[in-house]
Amino acid sequence: MEYDTLINNGLLISMAQGLPVVEDGAVLIKDGVIKACGKANEFFGVNVKNRIHADRKIIMPGLINCHTHLPMSMFRGLADDLPLDVWLNDHIFPAEAKHVNPESVEKWSRHSCIEMLLSGTTTCCDGYFHEERVAKAVMESGIRAVTGQGVIDFPAPGVADPKENVREAIGFVKRFKDASPRLYPSIFCHSPYTCSKETLTAAKKAAVDLGVLFQIHVAETRNEINLVQGLGKLSVIKYLDSIGILDEKTLLVHSVWIDDADIAVIKKNRASVVHCPESNMKLASGIAPVPKLIEKGVPVGLGTDGCASNNDHDLFAEMDTAAKLHKVALLDPCVMDARTTLKMATIKGAKAIGLDHITGSIEKGKSADIVLVDMDKPHVTPMYDPFSTLVYSSKASDVSLVMVDGKVLVQEGKIL
Amino acid sequence: MEYDTLINNGLLISMAQGLPVVEDGAVLIKDGVIKACGKANEFFGVNVKNRIHADRKIIMPGLINCHTHLPMSMFRGLADDLPLDVWLNDHIFPAEAKHVNPESVEKWSRHSCIEMLLSGTTTCCDGYFHEERVAKAVMESGIRAVTGQGVIDFPAPGVADPKENVREAIGFVKRFKDASPRLYPSIFCHSPYTCSKETLTAAKKAAVDLGVLFQIHVAETRNEINLVQGLGKLSVIKYLDSIGILDEKTLLVHSVWIDDADIAVIKKNRASVVHCPESNMKLASGIAPVPKLIEKGVPVGLGTDGCASNNDHDLFAEMDTAAKLHKVALLDPCVMDARTTLKMATIKGAKAIGLDHITGSIEKGKSADIVLVDMDKPHVTPMYDPFSTLVYSSKASDVSLVMVDGKVLVQEGKIL
Repeated sequence: MEYDTLINNGLLISMAQGLPVVEDGAVLIKDGVIKACGKANEFFGVNVKNRIHADRKIIMPGLINCHTHLPMSMFRGLADDLPLDVWLNDHIFPAEAKHVNPESVEKWSRHSCIEMLLSGTTTCCDGYFHEERVAKAVMESGIRAVTGQGVIDFPAPGVADPKENVREAIGFVKRFKDASPRLYPSIFCHSPYTCSKETLTAAKKAAVDLGVLFQIHVAETRNEINLVQGLGKLSVIKYLDSIGILDEKTLLVHSVWIDDADIAVIKKNRASVVHCPESNMKLASGIAPVPKLIEKGVPVGLGTDGCASNNDHDLFAEMDTAAKLHKVALLDPCVMDARTTLKMATIKGAKAIGLDHITGSIEKGKSADIVLVDMDKPHVTPMYDPFSTLVYSSKASDVSLVMVDGKVLVQEGKIL
Repeated sequence: MEYDTLINNGLLISMAQGLPVVEDGAVLIKDGVIKACGKANEFFGVNVKNRIHADRKIIMPGLINCHTHLPMSMFRGLADDLPLDVWLNDHIFPAEAKHVNPESVEKWSRHSCIEMLLSGTTTCCDGYFHEERVAKAVMESGIRAVTGQGVIDFPAPGVADPKENVREAIGFVKRFKDASPRLYPSIFCHSPYTCSKETLTAAKKAAVDLGVLFQIHVAETRNEINLVQGLGKLSVIKYLDSIGILDEKTLLVHSVWIDDADIAVIKKNRASVVHCPESNMKLASGIAPVPKLIEKGVPVGLGTDGCASNNDHDLFAEMDTAAKLHKVALLDPCVMDARTTLKMATIKGAKAIGLDHITGSIEKGKSADIVLVDMDKPHVTPMYDPFSTLVYSSKASDVSLVMVDGKVLVQEGKIL
């Protein structure tokens, strides 16, 4: 048998169960799928078209960015250091009204895909409007993505009449369900405070019927509990549970202001959470109880959020920040260790968005979504523990090669 | 008159008073000194040996890293995610006992200087042992540095008898006082809990007599107040004040666990503070009241700390983290705005270590310590506000050219 690609002689961090580290490791690929991985000498003499030498490089799964608004890179740095309401009402909303259209959405989604690929991200989970143009950019770029059409009870870009919001989202999912093996359409309800109970339940029902991921911003700010209509004495999480929103295909974005009882509800329903530490810090939203969520067994992925509140798509920086933030917040240097953090950015993120059977680790049968990270730079030398190096020292700019589905998209740090 | 260098056609962020931004800016240099800066067209036809084109680049002052232990890059990632006492007693102290010697100090200091230069840092303020070898590495590398010989009441590398610690530090300062125009020897007392009152006062007296900076770790952990001998009812800051340690040549490193009264004492004595957010986060030390210190007019610089607790010397990442950390800690998105943060990493840092007459901004008469930052990359596009871009989006890897004293040390992202 002739294989397509052999990645050879790198330090293999597969993120498979038990987190084995294989020095002088190799990965064998055919038709975009990982056929085998192990020690390089096991693959001596294998018949392969293309050999990639990974000397002095870490071979790791591509990173998973579980929460993005790709088109918002057009607003990167437009407005910072402002109160949330001023930022939203005086800057972001007017800018969106003026500049968001199908062409700008496609252009800046393409821009964001390039930015993500260059920094080692091979999968993202997006939510915005004109999502068909996000999907187009994703398909063209070669990245893997969940793409969620936005649902909100206000006139939105491309959805002038809010009464049509769920219908539009259903139409989007149907049109794109089989468009590409790298594209997973989804429904993205903006939040419990911008979507009525009727909208939420209709959108969730549609997502269940269509078998797709349901994404929602939840408990991002302390004040949210005062904004949700019809909450009564319930917490936001319990309210969503009471109306049937939570199940294993529900992705709860942010989940900052939740308590132990909420965590138990999330766990019971097998829902997932996305942690966006840099966005939560920059907008002064708060610190999500991530170590506790992980301890309770909730799948938690890592996300950058949109570029208006971060201001980039750099998951290496996000890992470093996540690992450090919870230590200082809990005054405990042992929480969010490097292995836990790297899992959040890879296999656990894949699990959170329902793609862990496809990506998130380097294992036989999974798609070849693989990144090579340079170890031959001063800021990553010496290396005692590759997990520590990747989380605390490696930079997005150390990514030298990126492949998705076995196709090389970034080589020598340049987009192809 | 023939000048040495003209940096031309860049976006000039001089960090001079008022923070002017000059599009199509230029800087004229002779004998390592900035002779003029302004609009590029003001320098048309000037007689100059070397022209540096800065199109699509930001021209900014080199960053100031106000707290380092340069040789500790040898322990980068040696031990992470551990309780402070286990980390220190079971890992760092034994590793130092085994591996720290004059040769390793020089080797890894040189390594750290290269890492800093590549990431846009042109000045650092260091404290360690065998500091004569740090000084040697600094002088050879071309970077600018305050170098503090360590003083501690335990046997230390190169100072077997603690009774000799202050004498050794004095000897170091005297030997290196005129060694290089880029080197500023200093005395670095480890902390109030590892140095007796007698040691502290003798070391401070020596620093005053010699006219050099006195550095000390202060109030890093909550528990420190229980470790300092002879504190009585005083806070650590008030204790230092009571024994005459605080003046405008005292650099208080960390200053995490201080209150309003301590801040008033620091201000009254015109002492300075170094903020090391990533180290404080990673070691779970706590969050220093930096916005309040700045509001009260205390000069606050930014530092990475040593690579055993960060794990790198990247001030771009440190700025991003600093700006975000205080927002979430105070639940106020307006604190530590981009301008304030960039000042902390440049002119205020220079002030904190007593070098603001020499470096920290691009102004006539100051040394030409200048960095060019690439604006032509996806993660910094678009740019609405260069301060926001530099703090929230730019990466160390965007640094394309670095000069110290007018000498180019990094070009096209490579060390020369």
